Amino acid sequence: MKLCRFGPAGAEKPGIVDADGRIRDLSGHVDDISSAVLGKDALAKIAAIDIASLPLVEEGTRYGPIVADTRQFVAIGLNFVDHAEESNLPIPEEPVVFNKWVSCIQGPNDPVTIPKDSLKTDWEVELGIVIGTEANNVSEADALDYVAGYCVVNDVSERHWQTERGMTWDKGKGFPTFGPVGPWLVTSDEVGDPQNLAMWLEVNGKRMQDGSSKTMIFTCAEIVAYLSKIMKLLPGDIITTGTPPGVGLGQKPEPWYLKAGDVVELGIEKLGSQRQDFVAWEAGK
Amino acid sequence: MKLCRFGPAGAEKPGIVDADGRIRDLSGHVDDISSAVLGKDALAKIAAIDIASLPLVEEGTRYGPIVADTRQFVAIGLNFVDHAEESNLPIPEEPVVFNKWVSCIQGPNDPVTIPKDSLKTDWEVELGIVIGTEANNVSEADALDYVAGYCVVNDVSERHWQTERGMTWDKGKGFPTFGPVGPWLVTSDEVGDPQNLAMWLEVNGKRMQDGSSKTMIFTCAEIVAYLSKIMKLLPGDIITTGTPPGVGLGQKPEPWYLKAGDVVELGIEKLGSQRQDFVAWEAGK
Repeated sequence: MKLCRFGPAGAEKPGIVDADGRIRDLSGHVDDISSAVLGKDALAKIAAIDIASLPLVEEGTRYGPIVADTRQFVAIGLNFVDHAEESNLPIPEEPVVFNKWVSCIQGPNDPVTIPKDSLKTDWEVELGIVIGTEANNVSEADALDYVAGYCVVNDVSERHWQTERGMTWDKGKGFPTFGPVGPWLVTSDEVGDPQNLAMWLEVNGKRMQDGSSKTMIFTCAEIVAYLSKIMKLLPGDIITTGTPPGVGLGQKPEPWYLKAGDVVELGIEKLGSQRQDFVAWEAGK
Repeated sequence: MKLCRFGPAGAEKPGIVDADGRIRDLSGHVDDISSAVLGKDALAKIAAIDIASLPLVEEGTRYGPIVADTRQFVAIGLNFVDHAEESNLPIPEEPVVFNKWVSCIQGPNDPVTIPKDSLKTDWEVELGIVIGTEANNVSEADALDYVAGYCVVNDVSERHWQTERGMTWDKGKGFPTFGPVGPWLVTSDEVGDPQNLAMWLEVNGKRMQDGSSKTMIFTCAEIVAYLSKIMKLLPGDIITTGTPPGVGLGQKPEPWYLKAGDVVELGIEKLGSQRQDFVAWEAGK
């Protein structure tokens, strides 16, 4: 299934995408796509609904963030060998974990605001894992049982704040609008193997990232098991699993970064695509 | 006012502490102490209630976390000169920011579970700021207007995971039970100057930390203004502002850490005190 949330920001309704790619209104069956409906039983109930009987939503309706109440937005760094190399950082021996503040989460096609006085706003196409069931100290073999599905994430990053303003990365990753997620939460059964999905990103129509989840250093199962040892993962949490090479920071001969007016499009096989206009801080306020 | 939440974990009710230190049941007036009641108008409505008319809560009732729906638990590192020195780290030129996963938040007197295979579980008494009103790009002069009040936080930390397992601190700060907050959210008007509060912590009755918010490097106003430039602060968010010297990591001639059976007590002037039994992972599961 492809679940989604549609409508104006802050007033989204739950939806499901039919075989023709049209959104159908699920609000007669569930209040929202939230932590309460991501467990196996609740998802099975949604799967049993006759989609064709649901009201069609007008084409062009805005997509919102895929989950109403994500409480933890966890991120994995340097999870592709060639991205670690382009970042001039060592290939990690275990997952690098950082945080994106949940207040940065937004719809997949909402404009992204370049922060005030930003020097280095960058892009990162990433595979997002959506947790379905609370997970604490779970094994790698069982880890994917706790996953409801997957989504596209643009892990928008301000490199100056990430790496030149103190000891941790969390300052540069969670500016408002830095967390486009969606358009869909595609359930695990429909995705199949999460380690074989093509990933791409373009800036102003130019292909910048072209990769695959196949070359991730740590797999989704390894990441969920690892995180579950250091924290309690909650239903609705999103884990964004690292980016392939081709970010602005890694450009030769010189890094270059996003400016107002740029358009970023990105997508992952089976999970849909996003498109963001980057706007100046004054305009995005 | 001293606001609180009382009762069994997951089923807390809102309360207010009267002049004699007894909890009164607020649930006839508000559904919960949550992000919805932390703005100035909502707090003024609570302040207008005749506390003596509210039902008394049985003595010894458990205190829960002070806010029902904290979405961001932000932490400031190395905010006391002598703690930076005992950590063998440079005195920061701007706030060091990291994250505590919100799933670690618990009541002030709930047992703390030492993580599986933990090597270095440590204590940190800290002054917590509770945000009342959404704050983004606010000035230092205005910053405290966005604050609902203050609380005690034990920023429990696993040093091995914090500093020896990769590039960021977030792994060692958010294990389940690592975020005792409370007992009370003391509103700003009752606290007065947040930069003049005595802070203390004892392990098994021995005084380990004895400090004051007077010697913080960055004040609460500076911290709120700074954070509001890199993220959107939401009502109910808790910012824990750093610890004075005297943590386990800083002990001479050798650092030492907490083990099952240890009891930690801590408090801050005007904000109340906490007491935690530290228990083994197997017992705390």
